[in-house]
Amino acid sequence: MPSEIRDPSLAPQGRARTAWARRQMPVLTDLAETVASKGTLRGVRVAVCAHVTTETAVLVAAMRAAGAEAVVCASNPLSTQDDVAAHLAVDLGLPVFAIRGEDAAQCARHVDRCLEELAAGAPAALRLIVDDGADLSAALHGPHRALLPSVAGATEETTTGLIRLRALLAEGLLGFPVVAVNDARTKRFFDNRHGTGQNTIDGVLRATNMLLAGSRVVVCGYGWCGRGIAARARGMGAQVTVCEVAPIPALEAVMDGFEVLPIEQAAARGDLFVTATGNRDVIRREHFPLMKDGAILANSGHFDLEIDVAALRGLAVARRPAREHVEEYELPNGRRVYLLAEGRLVGQAAAEASPAAVMDMSFANQLLAVDYLAARARGGRLAPGIYPVPPELDEEIARRKLAAMGVGIDRLTVEQERYLGSWQMPETVAV
Amino acid sequence: MPSEIRDPSLAPQGRARTAWARRQMPVLTDLAETVASKGTLRGVRVAVCAHVTTETAVLVAAMRAAGAEAVVCASNPLSTQDDVAAHLAVDLGLPVFAIRGEDAAQCARHVDRCLEELAAGAPAALRLIVDDGADLSAALHGPHRALLPSVAGATEETTTGLIRLRALLAEGLLGFPVVAVNDARTKRFFDNRHGTGQNTIDGVLRATNMLLAGSRVVVCGYGWCGRGIAARARGMGAQVTVCEVAPIPALEAVMDGFEVLPIEQAAARGDLFVTATGNRDVIRREHFPLMKDGAILANSGHFDLEIDVAALRGLAVARRPAREHVEEYELPNGRRVYLLAEGRLVGQAAAEASPAAVMDMSFANQLLAVDYLAARARGGRLAPGIYPVPPELDEEIARRKLAAMGVGIDRLTVEQERYLGSWQMPETVAV
Amino acid sequence: MPSEIRDPSLAPQGRARTAWARRQMPVLTDLAETVASKGTLRGVRVAVCAHVTTETAVLVAAMRAAGAEAVVCASNPLSTQDDVAAHLAVDLGLPVFAIRGEDAAQCARHVDRCLEELAAGAPAALRLIVDDGADLSAALHGPHRALLPSVAGATEETTTGLIRLRALLAEGLLGFPVVAVNDARTKRFFDNRHGTGQNTIDGVLRATNMLLAGSRVVVCGYGWCGRGIAARARGMGAQVTVCEVAPIPALEAVMDGFEVLPIEQAAARGDLFVTATGNRDVIRREHFPLMKDGAILANSGHFDLEIDVAALRGLAVARRPAREHVEEYELPNGRRVYLLAEGRLVGQAAAEASPAAVMDMSFANQLLAVDYLAARARGGRLAPGIYPVPPELDEEIARRKLAAMGVGIDRLTVEQERYLGSWQMPETVAV
Amino acid sequence: MPSEIRDPSLAPQGRARTAWARRQMPVLTDLAETVASKGTLRGVRVAVCAHVTTETAVLVAAMRAAGAEAVVCASNPLSTQDDVAAHLAVDLGLPVFAIRGEDAAQCARHVDRCLEELAAGAPAALRLIVDDGADLSAALHGPHRALLPSVAGATEETTTGLIRLRALLAEGLLGFPVVAVNDARTKRFFDNRHGTGQNTIDGVLRATNMLLAGSRVVVCGYGWCGRGIAARARGMGAQVTVCEVAPIPALEAVMDGFEVLPIEQAAARGDLFVTATGNRDVIRREHFPLMKDGAILANSGHFDLEIDVAALRGLAVARRPAREHVEEYELPNGRRVYLLAEGRLVGQAAAEASPAAVMDMSFANQLLAVDYLAARARGGRLAPGIYPVPPELDEEIARRKLAAMGVGIDRLTVEQERYLGSWQMPETVAV
Repeated sequence: MPSEIRDPSLAPQGRARTAWARRQMPVLTDLAETVASKGTLRGVRVAVCAHVTTETAVLVAAMRAAGAEAVVCASNPLSTQDDVAAHLAVDLGLPVFAIRGEDAAQCARHVDRCLEELAAGAPAALRLIVDDGADLSAALHGPHRALLPSVAGATEETTTGLIRLRALLAEGLLGFPVVAVNDARTKRFFDNRHGTGQNTIDGVLRATNMLLAGSRVVVCGYGWCGRGIAARARGMGAQVTVCEVAPIPALEAVMDGFEVLPIEQAAARGDLFVTATGNRDVIRREHFPLMKDGAILANSGHFDLEIDVAALRGLAVARRPAREHVEEYELPNGRRVYLLAEGRLVGQAAAEASPAAVMDMSFANQLLAVDYLAARARGGRLAPGIYPVPPELDEEIARRKLAAMGVGIDRLTVEQERYLGSWQMPETVAV
Repeated sequence: MPSEIRDPSLAPQGRARTAWARRQMPVLTDLAETVASKGTLRGVRVAVCAHVTTETAVLVAAMRAAGAEAVVCASNPLSTQDDVAAHLAVDLGLPVFAIRGEDAAQCARHVDRCLEELAAGAPAALRLIVDDGADLSAALHGPHRALLPSVAGATEETTTGLIRLRALLAEGLLGFPVVAVNDARTKRFFDNRHGTGQNTIDGVLRATNMLLAGSRVVVCGYGWCGRGIAARARGMGAQVTVCEVAPIPALEAVMDGFEVLPIEQAAARGDLFVTATGNRDVIRREHFPLMKDGAILANSGHFDLEIDVAALRGLAVARRPAREHVEEYELPNGRRVYLLAEGRLVGQAAAEASPAAVMDMSFANQLLAVDYLAARARGGRLAPGIYPVPPELDEEIARRKLAAMGVGIDRLTVEQERYLGSWQMPETVAV
Repeated sequence: MPSEIRDPSLAPQGRARTAWARRQMPVLTDLAETVASKGTLRGVRVAVCAHVTTETAVLVAAMRAAGAEAVVCASNPLSTQDDVAAHLAVDLGLPVFAIRGEDAAQCARHVDRCLEELAAGAPAALRLIVDDGADLSAALHGPHRALLPSVAGATEETTTGLIRLRALLAEGLLGFPVVAVNDARTKRFFDNRHGTGQNTIDGVLRATNMLLAGSRVVVCGYGWCGRGIAARARGMGAQVTVCEVAPIPALEAVMDGFEVLPIEQAAARGDLFVTATGNRDVIRREHFPLMKDGAILANSGHFDLEIDVAALRGLAVARRPAREHVEEYELPNGRRVYLLAEGRLVGQAAAEASPAAVMDMSFANQLLAVDYLAARARGGRLAPGIYPVPPELDEEIARRKLAAMGVGIDRLTVEQERYLGSWQMPETVAV
Repeated sequence: MPSEIRDPSLAPQGRARTAWARRQMPVLTDLAETVASKGTLRGVRVAVCAHVTTETAVLVAAMRAAGAEAVVCASNPLSTQDDVAAHLAVDLGLPVFAIRGEDAAQCARHVDRCLEELAAGAPAALRLIVDDGADLSAALHGPHRALLPSVAGATEETTTGLIRLRALLAEGLLGFPVVAVNDARTKRFFDNRHGTGQNTIDGVLRATNMLLAGSRVVVCGYGWCGRGIAARARGMGAQVTVCEVAPIPALEAVMDGFEVLPIEQAAARGDLFVTATGNRDVIRREHFPLMKDGAILANSGHFDLEIDVAALRGLAVARRPAREHVEEYELPNGRRVYLLAEGRLVGQAAAEASPAAVMDMSFANQLLAVDYLAARARGGRLAPGIYPVPPELDEEIARRKLAAMGVGIDRLTVEQERYLGSWQMPETVAV
């Protein structure tokens, strides 16, 4: 077994925790049976770059149960749960390349190893990518370009990854079809908003045990993630300030009752800062000296570039650990700011990533997207491009989730269907 | 002057109230100057079918100041503010056909009169429609078809109207270009959510003075309007139940913390029911007998068909006024339910429609859409179809609104712009 | 009939609206039967100084049904509903002294008239006061002192009134027992918080139709009223700032997620200001010039002194009506601020005071307090002083309210009762 | 050194974490200097029974800095942080008796050891108790009665402890004065509501990583703790049901927008149950079989008796660990329920107890209460009884906390002070 993991003896713990997650993922589990019975994934090789968490383990097991051969690497060096990596490698016998806390070089090498494993197997095998941040896809369009023609397509889980892939497409370089799983409504309305929303609060509390009530929380970015974070910070008693670059979301934040300020003004007010923008340098060199003594900095965006950590390091006169996942930076003005999880995704690094109940839907989308790419690839039809998850699959996932939660909804009557399809003046009520 | 209004002597009161609204509509007011200086609307004839409120008066005055000749009729017989109608007719000298409480026949005749006035004037004049519920547009595709070729296009303010126009388009019958003002983000994110959200609460309180805290409110429809109503009902202390037909919004409601039930189950729980779906018969014959004694029924959807008032009347053994805008229906089971505003838009009928501060954006979109249609029509280019408000106009409105509110936002740095356009692996922070 | 009211012909409207309120006051209505059957109030003369609203009419009718002879005057010249005054005078045949909008002199004269009527009747009759702001009580300790010995006690409905009565007590001047109805938990936890909370929002919306979403609302005072207002303003989408003089409530406001600022700093931020402190000059001369152009000022405290209206009038260079209940004040700096309802209770003046569903409990306390005073007075035992509503009556009201709402709660088991009465170390669970 | 702790080598970690907490406890730290300078605590022996957390370490260090000799034992076997115990024993050289996870027998023995150490030292030394749940106080009135006369008084931190001590007092057995720290407003309004509120959510998330959004959370008890938990569960997107035995809090819960049900009905609805009542058997044998498969049970009350764990164990057909702090119980009906932290305080056992920022105030009350008892004891004056924290100390703590947070509040003007002290009719505004 070619895996590179921390410690195979952690497998039983990973197995138990994965079983806990699986109980909250009924939609994915049920769909896996449907896909297995169709046989679309039989013999397909899938390279999965993802946060190596219990939920990912449920997805990988589901694909494997449907006949796929999977290989796994980590989309983030700090989010890997070593017990889960061991479970996948030992119990499922998969090639896994993921060690919590690995450095950038090792991380890059693991991407290479993952693609090498993808390349192995029967030459004619159908090969697919499940990506989270577009690292595998970017490598296939860069150093691993030779492998690109043999890959039938990819799925992408994140806003950040789609920004990169759309840039590839805009330059005319994209070499395969990509399903934008992130943009599925049953993904971004839930995973981004409620999953990241909760795991960010959770990560901050585990790292700091700070009191949110009465604190001032600055949320940078009012996309789905930022909305989920801002709503929960308020729900825990914080005063929330939002920073934005786009006018319409900024105005939404105002009308949702939040204070909206440019980061330069917000910098002096925050007790806690959270970035969730998909951009870089959102909090940067000029902002750190404006902050209060004791300010706490966390990131929930995909890359560890949203807070300019390099600039913070350059600026600081001293730097020391304060608690697990908390590093103190002493600034020339004598104030201290605290960086959580090295500026990496705080909910993944300091907590356990998004709860299984939302990943159930995100990964149901992944499974159906992989199934869709495999089915289409056999017909040889999909041109390079970025494709949505088909809306009827998206709706079906929501329908199954509601059923699993025991929630009933209404159905349109025949008259209602007809009314919605008509342009004639309705006869309104005679007074 | 051909106007048909209640009482011209109300003009001074309408003028004063309109001045109050204008103060909160700085975006529309500023844009009116821009449009006037371009001269696009000079000599254009515009038929406006809308709620005859102070905000509409500000819009009509803005179009007139930009050179257009306007004629006005009411989109709803119960929302007309007679003092505003008088102000438009007397102070601005416009043809106005709107009398609060007019019956269906008179209402239809006023649509006819409005289109006849539109047809008047120079034969070659450019003619446009500003619609709210698609009544003018439907009439132009039905009894007034002869006039259709001379009309260069229309704008549509509502979800309901767009449903009708899309049905026309689907049947291949749509005869002119329509700008979907309702779908502009600066319209539906604000007017539908926050405007209707507030005016519904306001209308219910004025009609009933009921205590929302501790009451059970059932909101039918979790679109933008429903979301705004549900959030505010909760914010006033109510327990909120949501009814939906679409699985994804239903699941959003669940995760936003609301109880979701089919209307058949919700019927027995509600103290107050509010419909906001764009559909008909959402609460119907079989639901009334399930309700608690004292249940209150209100509608915030465009047409008075969302609650099946005809069925309620057929069912009731007695019917009597209880308060202004409140009618008691005694059911065969001895229970009494109370219908607000005859099932018409409760916020328009019992309160004053959406606040000027949101209509500022909706009507800025209307003004720019009319300007856009006029400019394009002179070039002779727009085919029949349904067009979005151009996104850059949409953003510009938000930008101006933020500026008017004194809210600053961030700008992208050069590095950030570049980063968002790149697919290369970013160099993340070396640990 | 000695009444002084606006127009007797309004009685039918007042009767209908009172019937609407009565439906939502089941606790008071039921208790009235109990009190009537005991006969404690038979022949008792009660002077009621209160907001002359439909809910007060239900209380007065209940006392009358229980055998009391009531006489009524208004606790506030702007809150009187003339149709209700007519209903009480015409349909119930009571002496009523209340005309909406009466000036201060007439208001004072009506207090005199009310006490003169109280003095009438059999010399030996038991006389009681039901007060709202302590105007009758203060008059009995001042100009009407001669009548004081014949009055067996009073009840007081408001925070403001109790402040005055406690000052009387502290000076050793209080001449009869007072039941502090305001302090009953079923009164202040509900009427002050939820009743005033809602009627303030309602009053502001009716007066202005302003958009609360995205506006900055400054609430002065974080007592029960202020909490209810602040929570609802937030629930409607506003950003809320709280001003306080007491450190513990101020800290509670901070931890509830509100911004807390001294009024001097808050003055420049607010779009809407609401006072609810029980104090005077909370917003005063030095604050007005700091305000934004367009700022709106409202009061929800008992007296029209919380905003220093006299100072505002002195300061303004011009003053003109803007809408009903809205007066524009132009300041020397060119900015305009808008005063609602002349600085009087905005929810009483511009809306309909607190909803019947909360007044049900407040007035159930009033009825039981009057019953208690009458019963004790017959025994000749109660010394001058300020007495709480007996806790078992307070609890009984809550218990009946829950039952009327169909809400069930738990009962203690025998073991639980025993446990709560024991100090012994419980045996905790063996691991 | 007589300490009994897990591992002295953990001291450095405990020291670092305690330093982190101290930064957020400026009020306690400042007051410690004041008390030290007065010298009241010099030579006083204090037995502290508390959760052995970083915040407790800050309190103990503060008392020691003020001259007291402290001895420490744990108020709960699952909340002890072994690194903090090591820090107190090794770095401060105190007798500490606390080992995380110790069994009931060892726990009881540690209470004995703690009191033996208290008894040591100069016979004439002033001895005091700082208690959390009244375990030391109960032991002094039971097996350690001989020591009672030499103890000058106690403070009590919890609702549960005060219930026990009031039972002692009611039986005429209480042998010393007790300061009810729990009842200080700067304690219960913040620690109970916001501290326990947050640490309960935190504990549940760390134990389960469950998604709160869309889940049904049942909160038993609507006291300060329950309110804090319910508000935050809602703030995280849950639907919350409240169970209560007292009608007034139940009605408050209803009007705060929560569903209120008897536990028997709520049992079938909850995904998560949290008890916070101070009572026992709140969730008991008859309720478990009603629960949904997968229901999660947590307790935030002082003792592990609120959920009847013994009954659950008796009922279950199988019992197995599911995750750390999560135990699965399989019921005869085939459903599985999950008990967190063995039914002990979930925020203390699975998370890190209340944040330092609220404990700052709770422990400032403790310090001032100990100072007060010591000062009074030297004067020999305090009779057995239960005493409040003097209100001026309570206010002073809030005032200092606001100052430390940089929050300014208003001061009464001279006119306002005078107004609040007057009963005369104020001259209201002449219209």
